[in-house]
Amino acid sequence: MSTQQRIEFALKATLQFACEAPCPPRLRYAMQHAVFPGGARVRPRLCLAVAAACGDENPDLADGAAAAIELLHCASLVHDDLPCFDDADERRGVPSVHKAFGEPIAVLAGDALIVAAFQTIGLCLPMAPLHGARILTAVAAAVGGPSGIVAGQAWESEDQVVLSEYHRAKTGSLFSAATVSGAEAAGYESEPWRRLGDLVGEAYQIADDICDMVADPATRGKPSKRDSALGRPNAAQELGVHGAVRRLRALLAEATEAVPDCPGADALRAHIERSALPYLPKELLVAA
Amino acid sequence: MSTQQRIEFALKATLQFACEAPCPPRLRYAMQHAVFPGGARVRPRLCLAVAAACGDENPDLADGAAAAIELLHCASLVHDDLPCFDDADERRGVPSVHKAFGEPIAVLAGDALIVAAFQTIGLCLPMAPLHGARILTAVAAAVGGPSGIVAGQAWESEDQVVLSEYHRAKTGSLFSAATVSGAEAAGYESEPWRRLGDLVGEAYQIADDICDMVADPATRGKPSKRDSALGRPNAAQELGVHGAVRRLRALLAEATEAVPDCPGADALRAHIERSALPYLPKELLVAA
Repeated sequence: MSTQQRIEFALKATLQFACEAPCPPRLRYAMQHAVFPGGARVRPRLCLAVAAACGDENPDLADGAAAAIELLHCASLVHDDLPCFDDADERRGVPSVHKAFGEPIAVLAGDALIVAAFQTIGLCLPMAPLHGARILTAVAAAVGGPSGIVAGQAWESEDQVVLSEYHRAKTGSLFSAATVSGAEAAGYESEPWRRLGDLVGEAYQIADDICDMVADPATRGKPSKRDSALGRPNAAQELGVHGAVRRLRALLAEATEAVPDCPGADALRAHIERSALPYLPKELLVAA
Repeated sequence: MSTQQRIEFALKATLQFACEAPCPPRLRYAMQHAVFPGGARVRPRLCLAVAAACGDENPDLADGAAAAIELLHCASLVHDDLPCFDDADERRGVPSVHKAFGEPIAVLAGDALIVAAFQTIGLCLPMAPLHGARILTAVAAAVGGPSGIVAGQAWESEDQVVLSEYHRAKTGSLFSAATVSGAEAAGYESEPWRRLGDLVGEAYQIADDICDMVADPATRGKPSKRDSALGRPNAAQELGVHGAVRRLRALLAEATEAVPDCPGADALRAHIERSALPYLPKELLVAA
């Protein structure tokens, strides 16, 4: 089974469990709408790439962690799109969850996806209590307070923003959870893998900032120039588009250097080099 | 330490962890506002009463489960109060979280409390992997889809509501999680404890329905007659107030009968008999 198939299969199994009868139909449809069809599945692919590089000793645990991380990412998108945040009408080229199902169901679908993520890890615990518990606490730290995604989003409501903390929390944290969980699922000591996740996360944030500035909304599946419209920091605005592309390439190079020793280090480095670039408009890659 | 002190201590420890630096200040204040000062802490008290009746073999695990259950209850209140649901200005006699901190922070505080709940259980896993994992999955099932609190709330967005499922999901599920977790934390086989939680949960829902109909909003700390204003089912409206009080007493009697065999069964029965009645206006207790 390909990595992509593993991810979709794990996500389907999780949602089937969370949405089985007697789940209220609109909640079920909204959760499915939030997760399928997906985006690039960048975070779970990174998680499984790390697990594979470390020998993938417990693929079911790796799949569970990857699915949980993607569900939490999807949940954060559903809540971020709400009228009180980005008020986004579209996501991945289709109506956002609150546009399709109304605001109450969007709030609840986000909540239910968060719960489903932890339930997914919980169901893996009997097969690997120690590593499963570490994955659970790493993933929870990447999402909640004081420095997970939710905290990152909350910095947008502060007058005084610590910019590095904002980016690390809002984007980097779930990438670090992906590398840590992938290593942990393969039975590796996971702390050395955190920095790799931080670097890939920062690279991905810059790629997203560049896309926000230059990409065509139709190919991107969501509106562009949202950062400047909402007064949010954007690396491509700060560094210029080509400066941001150079920074992105430098971060990816640093990330490949940061891969800890493991049997599949070369394949993982190749994965990382490819990881953030495909989201950029092609003409930028040629020019940079 | 009294049960009340144990609960407050466990909640404080959990929030301290979730809100430590570098947590954005408004998110931290909002999470604390949502949890302190608390309501009656009915669910964690039930959890600890069951754990005590079963010998309280692992009090730290019981405290963790009790705190997680209360955090999830608080999270559900924060999201239920949002403008797109109940649009409640007050909760527990003070402004609701979105009134005090704005809607974005209220959505995020609810999310962060959900995550903190699972993190709390996650931190207990090393001390009791098997029972901790069972508590995690029981608590997750009580909150998410297909039949936890979130599903209960989602039934309010459906045209065709399965009433029994609505009540069981919206209120009963977290009470069942409380009895199951309390027994599990004490090392007991927990499935026989589920029915007790269902019955206490149903009793508590009826007590809440009665209060919604008759109690003074000032003593209740939240607006009254919300069910009829929002077109929601209410047992006191269906059965009449005195009929509802009789039904409540019958349910509590049934619950005391349903206590499984354990060393502290008598004390637990006394706890249950007292559990839902104090929330009713005194004149009703005399008349019923």
